[in-house]
Amino acid sequence: MPSLPPDIPGIIRDETGAQTLLGYVVDITVGDGTALCHLDIGAQHTNRHGGLHGGIISCMLDNAMGFAASLTGDEAGETRFMTLSMTTQYLAPAREGRVTAKGVIAGGGRSLVFTEGEVTDADGTVIATATGVYKRVKP
Amino acid sequence: MPSLPPDIPGIIRDETGAQTLLGYVVDITVGDGTALCHLDIGAQHTNRHGGLHGGIISCMLDNAMGFAASLTGDEAGETRFMTLSMTTQYLAPAREGRVTAKGVIAGGGRSLVFTEGEVTDADGTVIATATGVYKRVKP
Amino acid sequence: MPSLPPDIPGIIRDETGAQTLLGYVVDITVGDGTALCHLDIGAQHTNRHGGLHGGIISCMLDNAMGFAASLTGDEAGETRFMTLSMTTQYLAPAREGRVTAKGVIAGGGRSLVFTEGEVTDADGTVIATATGVYKRVKP
Amino acid sequence: MPSLPPDIPGIIRDETGAQTLLGYVVDITVGDGTALCHLDIGAQHTNRHGGLHGGIISCMLDNAMGFAASLTGDEAGETRFMTLSMTTQYLAPAREGRVTAKGVIAGGGRSLVFTEGEVTDADGTVIATATGVYKRVKP
Repeated sequence: MPSLPPDIPGIIRDETGAQTLLGYVVDITVGDGTALCHLDIGAQHTNRHGGLHGGIISCMLDNAMGFAASLTGDEAGETRFMTLSMTTQYLAPAREGRVTAKGVIAGGGRSLVFTEGEVTDADGTVIATATGVYKRVKP
Repeated sequence: MPSLPPDIPGIIRDETGAQTLLGYVVDITVGDGTALCHLDIGAQHTNRHGGLHGGIISCMLDNAMGFAASLTGDEAGETRFMTLSMTTQYLAPAREGRVTAKGVIAGGGRSLVFTEGEVTDADGTVIATATGVYKRVKP
Repeated sequence: MPSLPPDIPGIIRDETGAQTLLGYVVDITVGDGTALCHLDIGAQHTNRHGGLHGGIISCMLDNAMGFAASLTGDEAGETRFMTLSMTTQYLAPAREGRVTAKGVIAGGGRSLVFTEGEVTDADGTVIATATGVYKRVKP
Repeated sequence: MPSLPPDIPGIIRDETGAQTLLGYVVDITVGDGTALCHLDIGAQHTNRHGGLHGGIISCMLDNAMGFAASLTGDEAGETRFMTLSMTTQYLAPAREGRVTAKGVIAGGGRSLVFTEGEVTDADGTVIATATGVYKRVKP
């Protein structure tokens, strides 16, 4: 398994309680508004079928799409957005190795943003896709 | 906060890695095909806004709806189903106390099941709703 | 087939081009914030399977949920809302007779509204369910 | 407005009652599994805002994605699939001219197919995106 990205600007660890618990790493180093979320699957992430739990897949997609929304507000992705709605489709199971969720902007404006996301496994197989609607939180 | 249900038939703890990590309890004691999933919010479940992480809300809904699907196969909910698709709407934030996801069957047949879910907080406020499509896994 | 509701306040016909083309009737006479949308299935509404076209089912759900949103603004449902996102689940086919879509409010506030909908056939069988997010349009 | 495609193989008109009523044209001439659905907006397609009705947008997406599913069964797209679930996001209004829905396959297998769709207006602006789950109908 490749090592996770080093601690450089744009690599975000342990920002929230949920992030520390689940152990994913947010990555906004792509620089074009795309947000990534990496996770190395461990036994603590598994479902009844021994694969990555669908709820954790949705969690990663929500993180990646939410950060893509935040990147519309500022380059560091610190602008707060909340999820209004999201839909996930589960295309294939993931069993081991690193999975990466990617979030991008599909449309919208300043306060409402439409997003798209997908999760790929270590082989590049798409295991899930998602769409979402996010709303900017007034400071 | 009320204590979690005792260890009686229909109360399911630590069945999967994800369940142990997140700390939720599955409850199929209702007996009419409804599945519940309880979680006591802790700092390890929070998002950037200090509330329960939306991804964890989706995770609970997936568990509750997936167990409702499994209960169509056998009374103990051991029949395996996988999630094809799910949509979550986030109606309100949840900050502390116990939240409970409820999953029920909306329609479908033997191999494909349509579900509905909702999450309520300790005051009974609905914080999220969901729909999903689940497919029976061949043994 | 029962006759459609007479022309009384709360029965809305031919309000838009799409409504006239498809032939559905909006019904906000329930009075508790619920909006209904009735359609008598004809050959012009059918899909490849000879049943009611899924797109027309979604259209009716969007109308019913959108009117439920509008009823949060004024009693006559004239406040404009636009659909941000909607998800439809198709539980069963509908072949003939009258189908009715019902839209209700699940949550939200003044400018953003979360809705739920369902379509039943003449026998009361639920043929589709939906959820949606609607946004008030500034006058 | 450009003229609609001529009557060549892969251009499908008036196949169903709904298609004749709404007036869209299905186009599977792309040849790589993509299905298109064209509509020239008229007054009969409009909503309360004077734009293309969201329900008709969903209808076009369902057609395009359903035909993409059918193209996984045979080259002429005659294999029957039914929609289990679909989600539409409405990114921008469309007021006039031709709109085209595109449906492609995101994943799945022989009997269950996951799809993605988008609708663009005459200027190429994306006005809606969608995802769906389709199931093959046994002959």
